[in-house]
Amino acid sequence: MMVQKVLGGAGLRGQVAGKTALCTVGQSGSGLTYCGYDIADLAAHASFEEVAYLLVYGELPSLTQLEEFNARLRHHRRLPLALKEVLERIPATAHPMDVMRTGCSLLGNLETEQTFAEQDQVIERLIALLPAIICYWYQYSHHDKRIETATDDDSVGGHFLHMLHGEKPSALHQSVMHASLVLYAEHEFNASTFTARVCASTLSDMHSCITAAIGSLRGPLHGGANEAAMALIQQMDSPEHAEQLLLEKLANKDKVMGFGHAVYRTSDPRNGIIKAWSKRLAEEADSPLLYQVSERCEQVMWREKELFPNADFFHASAYHYLGIPTKLFTPIFVMSRVTGWAAHVKEQRADNRIIRPSADYVGPEPRAYVAIEQRVAK
Amino acid sequence: MMVQKVLGGAGLRGQVAGKTALCTVGQSGSGLTYCGYDIADLAAHASFEEVAYLLVYGELPSLTQLEEFNARLRHHRRLPLALKEVLERIPATAHPMDVMRTGCSLLGNLETEQTFAEQDQVIERLIALLPAIICYWYQYSHHDKRIETATDDDSVGGHFLHMLHGEKPSALHQSVMHASLVLYAEHEFNASTFTARVCASTLSDMHSCITAAIGSLRGPLHGGANEAAMALIQQMDSPEHAEQLLLEKLANKDKVMGFGHAVYRTSDPRNGIIKAWSKRLAEEADSPLLYQVSERCEQVMWREKELFPNADFFHASAYHYLGIPTKLFTPIFVMSRVTGWAAHVKEQRADNRIIRPSADYVGPEPRAYVAIEQRVAK
Repeated sequence: MMVQKVLGGAGLRGQVAGKTALCTVGQSGSGLTYCGYDIADLAAHASFEEVAYLLVYGELPSLTQLEEFNARLRHHRRLPLALKEVLERIPATAHPMDVMRTGCSLLGNLETEQTFAEQDQVIERLIALLPAIICYWYQYSHHDKRIETATDDDSVGGHFLHMLHGEKPSALHQSVMHASLVLYAEHEFNASTFTARVCASTLSDMHSCITAAIGSLRGPLHGGANEAAMALIQQMDSPEHAEQLLLEKLANKDKVMGFGHAVYRTSDPRNGIIKAWSKRLAEEADSPLLYQVSERCEQVMWREKELFPNADFFHASAYHYLGIPTKLFTPIFVMSRVTGWAAHVKEQRADNRIIRPSADYVGPEPRAYVAIEQRVAK
Repeated sequence: MMVQKVLGGAGLRGQVAGKTALCTVGQSGSGLTYCGYDIADLAAHASFEEVAYLLVYGELPSLTQLEEFNARLRHHRRLPLALKEVLERIPATAHPMDVMRTGCSLLGNLETEQTFAEQDQVIERLIALLPAIICYWYQYSHHDKRIETATDDDSVGGHFLHMLHGEKPSALHQSVMHASLVLYAEHEFNASTFTARVCASTLSDMHSCITAAIGSLRGPLHGGANEAAMALIQQMDSPEHAEQLLLEKLANKDKVMGFGHAVYRTSDPRNGIIKAWSKRLAEEADSPLLYQVSERCEQVMWREKELFPNADFFHASAYHYLGIPTKLFTPIFVMSRVTGWAAHVKEQRADNRIIRPSADYVGPEPRAYVAIEQRVAK
């Protein structure tokens, strides 16, 4: 049997798999940069659409460029009839990420990317349409409503909240959505982005790449930590109860989702930003409990395990204050990360070699074929 | 700016990305083994279902195990109503691989894999249903026919040809399908399989992994070489014309699809097998032209470039003799390779670490944020 070492550990950890100009993680500034800009600056000052533009086109837009970009996104919000009919056939019991994956895949049949010259158009359509896909399915399957997705909201986050709640969101709620979508937009060679790049390396179409990435983000080791965090904090009646529950979990060696990170070592630069928004939402709603228990969780996890909240943990309370059903948390991640995925697909296409690694063979030695009549059941 | 080297070249070429017990390429026997068995033995003696069982369960089945496996596959051939309704909404102009990807993804909404304990059942359902998905869409969109997919054919290949032609295939045609599906079933860490493994490494569900892999196989650098080969040989009126056309292409430095391989150096062990079947089909049909021009292509490419036909080249003429429309060639690849993909997903799950490589950053240095009013369009 052949024996070779897996270089750099399993999961390609620490192995360089390609180049990117899009993002650094743990290298400079607050710890996360998009195209050279610090995440703290972007989350404080830029709209999500500015960041989407930055990732997809490489530079922050001028005012005119942003207005044109936003106008195109608004123009793209109408769902094709066949896509609506398909979404109406997906049951309420379906996993919302399966709905996102299928909506994106179906769109590829209706509006196929014929050449890479169309890639920017396809990307803008996806940024505009993914919120409509999930909201149309959600409202139809859960509330028997066929919603109009072509609204005049001036942001992706505002559009989403409008479709979800049936009314335009407040300025505060829109600002939280901007910050949240900015924070989730890009994160270097994480598993879903790497999935998109492997798919792109065969020179497949954009819808295939984004569909594949959604499927990877669906995995509980990747997306979904904010949903798990919500399930946890919803059980907590008070900060004291939070402390007690967490200590029990730690004693049982249960995994607590929303803490720690594969790359960051002492803090996640996105945490402080979304935490501050969660606090403001708690004050606005005059409903401090969820924020208070979240804060206590942060203290306990650091004291007991030196683990810090990652981007996901305070997203749970923030999204809940925005009135977003927990099952739609990971689809919001898709609405944001589609910008990073698409930017990586463009980058892979621009300097491509098919991604085809090798494997250590650890299977049976060569063996002689045995006719079926002579085989014994194993 | 940070500068690091990409180890082992772009595309992870030559880098070990994990372990497998499923396949060796270019290491022993004729050059390709599945679970220790030589591809020459499997293609000569085993049915596709035996090989599917081998890949998914690790051992060739006994006669009883095979009969039970086949019975389960037959049982799984009926399309859910919602899936038929969705396929009816995909236009005839769609890319058939987009149809396969969407059908697989939609199925994940209707029959979601809730826990990994269900994985074998989900895999068997996919093996049984993928041929039905493509044939149902094809017959409906191209011929306005709603076909019955629940037939009693005793093989995946026979089922496919039956749905395509509306009658049970001859014994010869079934044998060719067995051999073809065996040859395409598995090929180590190729790009689509690696896509499936990256997706699986987030512990996502089986439908996400297979959907992602279909998207990768769709790329022209991966699946689709047999379709390109068909487009080429269909232009050739005689062996002399074939030679002339090829020499022109080579002089123009056009890429000739179906020749050479990323791993094999002097021949592809699958070529001789499908070539022999193509010859028999030509004799049976008393229509030697396509086979003869293919053979001449083989001679010319070797003489001029020392390039040999890979698995795809003689598949073009073989599939054409079977009366299969060219646009369905790559979907047949999916019907077969789903077994290898699924086996790799099982293997990844059994010893998992999330696949998350690093990247060389080659982007802008840290830069200060500029308010939108002060930006110039770039």
